[in-house]
Amino acid sequence: LWPVQQGERSDEEEEDVAGGKPIYMVSDGTGWTAEHSVNAALGQFEHCLVDRGCPVNTHLFSGVDEEERLMEIIKQAAKEGALLLYTLADPSMAECAKHACQLWGVPFTDILGPTTEAIATHIGVSPSGIPRGAPGRNLPLTKDYFKRIEAVEFTIKQDDGAQPKNLKMADIVLVGVSRTGKTPLSIYLSQKGYKVANVPIVMGVALPQTLFEIDQYKIFALTINPVILQTIRRARAKSLGFDGQTRSNYSEMDHVREELGFAGRIFAQNPVWPVIEVTGKAIEETAAVVVRIYHDRKQKCSMPRISKRY
Amino acid sequence: LWPVQQGERSDEEEEDVAGGKPIYMVSDGTGWTAEHSVNAALGQFEHCLVDRGCPVNTHLFSGVDEEERLMEIIKQAAKEGALLLYTLADPSMAECAKHACQLWGVPFTDILGPTTEAIATHIGVSPSGIPRGAPGRNLPLTKDYFKRIEAVEFTIKQDDGAQPKNLKMADIVLVGVSRTGKTPLSIYLSQKGYKVANVPIVMGVALPQTLFEIDQYKIFALTINPVILQTIRRARAKSLGFDGQTRSNYSEMDHVREELGFAGRIFAQNPVWPVIEVTGKAIEETAAVVVRIYHDRKQKCSMPRISKRY
Ligand SMILES: Nc1ncnc2c1ncn2[C@@H]1O[C@H](COP(=O)(O)O)[C@@H](O)[C@H]1O
Ligand SMILES: Nc1ncnc2c1ncn2[C@@H]1O[C@H](COP(=O)(O)O)[C@@H](O)[C@H]1O
Ligand SMILES: [Mg+2]
Ligand SMILES: [Mg+2]
Repeated sequence: LWPVQQGERSDEEEEDVAGGKPIYMVSDGTGWTAEHSVNAALGQFEHCLVDRGCPVNTHLFSGVDEEERLMEIIKQAAKEGALLLYTLADPSMAECAKHACQLWGVPFTDILGPTTEAIATHIGVSPSGIPRGAPGRNLPLTKDYFKRIEAVEFTIKQDDGAQPKNLKMADIVLVGVSRTGKTPLSIYLSQKGYKVANVPIVMGVALPQTLFEIDQYKIFALTINPVILQTIRRARAKSLGFDGQTRSNYSEMDHVREELGFAGRIFAQNPVWPVIEVTGKAIEETAAVVVRIYHDRKQKCSMPRISKRY
Repeated sequence: LWPVQQGERSDEEEEDVAGGKPIYMVSDGTGWTAEHSVNAALGQFEHCLVDRGCPVNTHLFSGVDEEERLMEIIKQAAKEGALLLYTLADPSMAECAKHACQLWGVPFTDILGPTTEAIATHIGVSPSGIPRGAPGRNLPLTKDYFKRIEAVEFTIKQDDGAQPKNLKMADIVLVGVSRTGKTPLSIYLSQKGYKVANVPIVMGVALPQTLFEIDQYKIFALTINPVILQTIRRARAKSLGFDGQTRSNYSEMDHVREELGFAGRIFAQNPVWPVIEVTGKAIEETAAVVVRIYHDRKQKCSMPRISKRY
């Protein structure tokens, strides 16, 4: 299912900020690291967020690379009674943030500083102190750069029924019935550099022969609870404007169960395909499982892990 | 250009880990937060990483929800002389990690703990201590969930020349010549919940009339340095297997300059479109600029920011 990194975007909600506890996030870069970390941390307070009477409003300020702007933001944080969370590469900016927060009584935490310092000590090299967007810093056009774009473009083209010849070229092939999240999962994985193809399973329709001729270790089967699937399909049918007559089968419980049964029998005949339960999982959670299995299988490492070199 | 969160995936490199300083990342969840933070932090050491003789190898261990497995990993970290960076929601697991690291002399940092604690103090609520993957925790199928999937699906369908009628339905419309990164940028933004359409600019070809009929505030123009564009197009032509004859125009410097000039004149005629320079920027950096402008324009807020409610 979809990454509910909670509340990535909700325009309606954007307007209604009454009563929420404000959290300011400030970065000299994109702010995505701060946002990602705060999303994860807020997962620890699900029991009390907006639905439970204790809403939180986050406010992201990205590209903050001047002291003056930083000071303005912190002053405003003081006025609104906000918590300030920041990622600032330039040590003098980070110092500024700290001092201003102390001066104006704004609670604060440096999100990335401790990690950067731990790495600095570990490798015995000082951090550059240069923010990612600093003038003159240019992204190198590495092999990795092109490979990643290719993975996204490949994956988009394969969406919803790859051409058989392209199954061979994929790193990962997802199979599952409609609305098991193959598309968003494929896209998520492609952004991590994997070429993904997906093959829908449709009641009574044979899978393409090529699927059985490629490396079976790259095939991943997705499964889901029938009740949840029905809910998702109903929402889907509604958003596509089906009138309850057209394709009514699609979200009928009997049909849903039958189709999942059909898929289950195919999976049983291909026991080498890992069957991944997506019910109740965010896309990025399913992605983590796929990537973990993918690397475990490729690796003859004593202890399964996903390794990279920088 | 593409998100070079460095080294997301490189199979070749995965094998050659000789001499690199090891960093272990451990999460009871997906591990993406740790990975994202470490990617950002490693940006501070670009001057000394693999190309400069001081390689770092990261090793991600996700879904670590048992003490026993945690201990094994830390023992292995001690053997390899690794730094351990972790995100563990369960306080007893986090304590375990700390004690084991101290016992076995493994340097460590809790990546998310300080942020979670700062939020807890700020909102006056204790963290649940329950990891995201814990049994029984199920992702709710929120409006947001469906909206996000729709955004991705919409965006995939619009790639490379939206149907005119769909331009109206998009939240964001990107225009630019081939290889300015419209596709990966669209996909990146769609995952944040924006419906994105993109309209290619091709030398001598008129843009669709609908583009000028929709809300002009949602249109963003992309531009790029001609030399860099030529490099990218050459790589592209090569990877598509063009033989240097076919479509040779495409990456000829004269043609590249002319096409950028053509685009530039269109942009000048539409001064309300922000022109975003993508040269040397990672996809997520361009995305940050687009999202920032998008929200600044929608918002009548005293201080530009991107706000969300949780
Ligand atoms: N490639 C990079 N080079 C240098 N600093 C970076 C890089 N990526 C991220 N950072 C820094 O890490 C922090 C978080 O980045 P961001 O996620 O863009 O907000 C900011 O302080 C950035 O300046
Ligand atoms: N929705 C959530 N609910 C509870 N904990 C979460 C949630 N999302 C992330 N976390 C926690 O935040 C940390 C980082 O998550 P991850 O990025 O999945 O590794 C882990 O300790 C997770 O258990
Ligand atoms: Mg940040
Ligand atoms: Mg993590």
